[in-house]
Amino acid sequence: MLYPDTITLTNPLDMHLHLRDGEMLHHIARESAKSFSGAIIMPNLVPPVTSKEEVQAYRKRIVEAIGDETFTPYMTLFFKPTYDKTFLESVKNDIAAIKLYPAGITTNSEGGVSGFDIEELRPALEAMEELDIPLCIHGETNGFVMDREAEFVPIYEKLAAAFPKLKIIMEHITTKESVAALERFENLYATITVHHLYITLDDVAGGMLNPHLFCKPIAKRPEDREALLKAALEAHPKVMFGSDSAPHPRHAKESCGCAAGVFTAPVALQLLAQLFEHHGAPLEHLQQFVSGTAQKIYGITPPSKNVILEKKPYTVKETYGGVVPMYAGETIDFSIREIQHG
Amino acid sequence: MLYPDTITLTNPLDMHLHLRDGEMLHHIARESAKSFSGAIIMPNLVPPVTSKEEVQAYRKRIVEAIGDETFTPYMTLFFKPTYDKTFLESVKNDIAAIKLYPAGITTNSEGGVSGFDIEELRPALEAMEELDIPLCIHGETNGFVMDREAEFVPIYEKLAAAFPKLKIIMEHITTKESVAALERFENLYATITVHHLYITLDDVAGGMLNPHLFCKPIAKRPEDREALLKAALEAHPKVMFGSDSAPHPRHAKESCGCAAGVFTAPVALQLLAQLFEHHGAPLEHLQQFVSGTAQKIYGITPPSKNVILEKKPYTVKETYGGVVPMYAGETIDFSIREIQHG
Repeated sequence: MLYPDTITLTNPLDMHLHLRDGEMLHHIARESAKSFSGAIIMPNLVPPVTSKEEVQAYRKRIVEAIGDETFTPYMTLFFKPTYDKTFLESVKNDIAAIKLYPAGITTNSEGGVSGFDIEELRPALEAMEELDIPLCIHGETNGFVMDREAEFVPIYEKLAAAFPKLKIIMEHITTKESVAALERFENLYATITVHHLYITLDDVAGGMLNPHLFCKPIAKRPEDREALLKAALEAHPKVMFGSDSAPHPRHAKESCGCAAGVFTAPVALQLLAQLFEHHGAPLEHLQQFVSGTAQKIYGITPPSKNVILEKKPYTVKETYGGVVPMYAGETIDFSIREIQHG
Repeated sequence: MLYPDTITLTNPLDMHLHLRDGEMLHHIARESAKSFSGAIIMPNLVPPVTSKEEVQAYRKRIVEAIGDETFTPYMTLFFKPTYDKTFLESVKNDIAAIKLYPAGITTNSEGGVSGFDIEELRPALEAMEELDIPLCIHGETNGFVMDREAEFVPIYEKLAAAFPKLKIIMEHITTKESVAALERFENLYATITVHHLYITLDDVAGGMLNPHLFCKPIAKRPEDREALLKAALEAHPKVMFGSDSAPHPRHAKESCGCAAGVFTAPVALQLLAQLFEHHGAPLEHLQQFVSGTAQKIYGITPPSKNVILEKKPYTVKETYGGVVPMYAGETIDFSIREIQHG
């Protein structure tokens, strides 16, 4: 399907974003704020965001770093099984979701959950269910790197069955097994990144080793990418765009022992437009994937922003504040022509 | 099985070694020559070694770089389907084997074989069969990185069936599928590296990304490593040690777009002793794996050398002539105590 020369995306949302803190936050937050109306902000700082005061203070630092009001940071707490209903009620208006990390599974997740004992989790999760706070999960076990996500699917299903009114969002899914799980439980949702729609393990380690495409979960097999693509391109009603854009300084990516994360914030919408056009998916599906579906699932109304993309080659910058983006120095098919506010 | 405090390996052989050329050859050749009686030298220079004169000249450069006579470089040619019987007869005494690379599959393999048409290969392979020249193969397709070797097994089998007297050596095997193929064709043999006995993809990309463990074929799944370990520890009569030790300068490993290869030459025997002891394998099996089996298969008698190892912690050097070895800076269980010549 040939897209018109310019396409307009309305109120794009990034439903999984790492903005970090301090200097890095100042380097990269504007890259998301420019082209998105809002984003779900991950809480895995050091220490993680676990109190009302920390959420409010982190939100304030983000707003200050961005310096305008056309982008809403939708805040999250770092899940603790000790959260009780009183606490959750008190913090409900400050957050859009709570993010659960299995212990030690990714950057700054050491204080996460070990084991998934339903009775241990019941008080917190029942309170979230009652208060309609979505639970975002980084779903990986400590197993073999290519199996970690598929091995976690039974845990997703156990939680979905035990808490049928809890919205559980399988974050940055990378496997056909996770896509299939969406159909088995009404209360399972998912985000998909742009890089997992483009790459497989071949792009990370099939030729030369490419640290800038190394992320957690690691990119999987071609048939996994096909399943993700299908869900995104058809605008699956439970699947949202979430970039998982994660900045690391160049030295942390290119040294021995490279950190996990792909920085896609400045190129995400252009790459999505390229992908949907390439596969001939209707433009409405792209609009659903980058905004409409998330608004419905989260019940949010982001600030008004029109991002006008045009089909015009764009050479991706080599770095943004010391961070190397996906496809740095390469030329992609779409550019951002204009951004209209209000 | 507790090993004695010192163990002696007699005439160790490395049946798959990259010595490169020029400055790098001078930096690293002695590391192999110290502890091995001989090695099969891979011919993937730029340009590859394809003539009698080139083999002789490369052998001379190796001998000069090493500077002693206690190590035999067993030379190889880079396979070309155009080799005919006259040529092979003329070069037979200069080589121990011929190495076949599928085109573009690894470092300096651009001039390799595309497609495996039996009739196209017949003249060269029948001549090798007749002259009893073993064919070493880097068996990978251009498929998905985790499947490349398993996808190549049918090609190994097609060649083994078409040329039943040709010794075909499946080099640096990494999968249970290749181990299983050994049992189906009498004329299939294999080498296994030390790093593939130690690591899986988890060690390369399961935590941080580790460029120093990135190699081709890439390390596979835990069950693959188990199959390799079983074959090595039981001294499978068709399985030889071949390190595939491959030096790259530190900058080529740690930059963006890291080169493939693990440098194990200086630590291979120590790591093998540690592994065989850890798994309680008989010492005779280690001797078979690192020398006896190769002598039988290749019909070679290497220079006499006793390598006396002792169970004494050894901290691996950070670099050898600018090349970072496997387990650099880490402490392993075995040290080389003494090397006796003649």
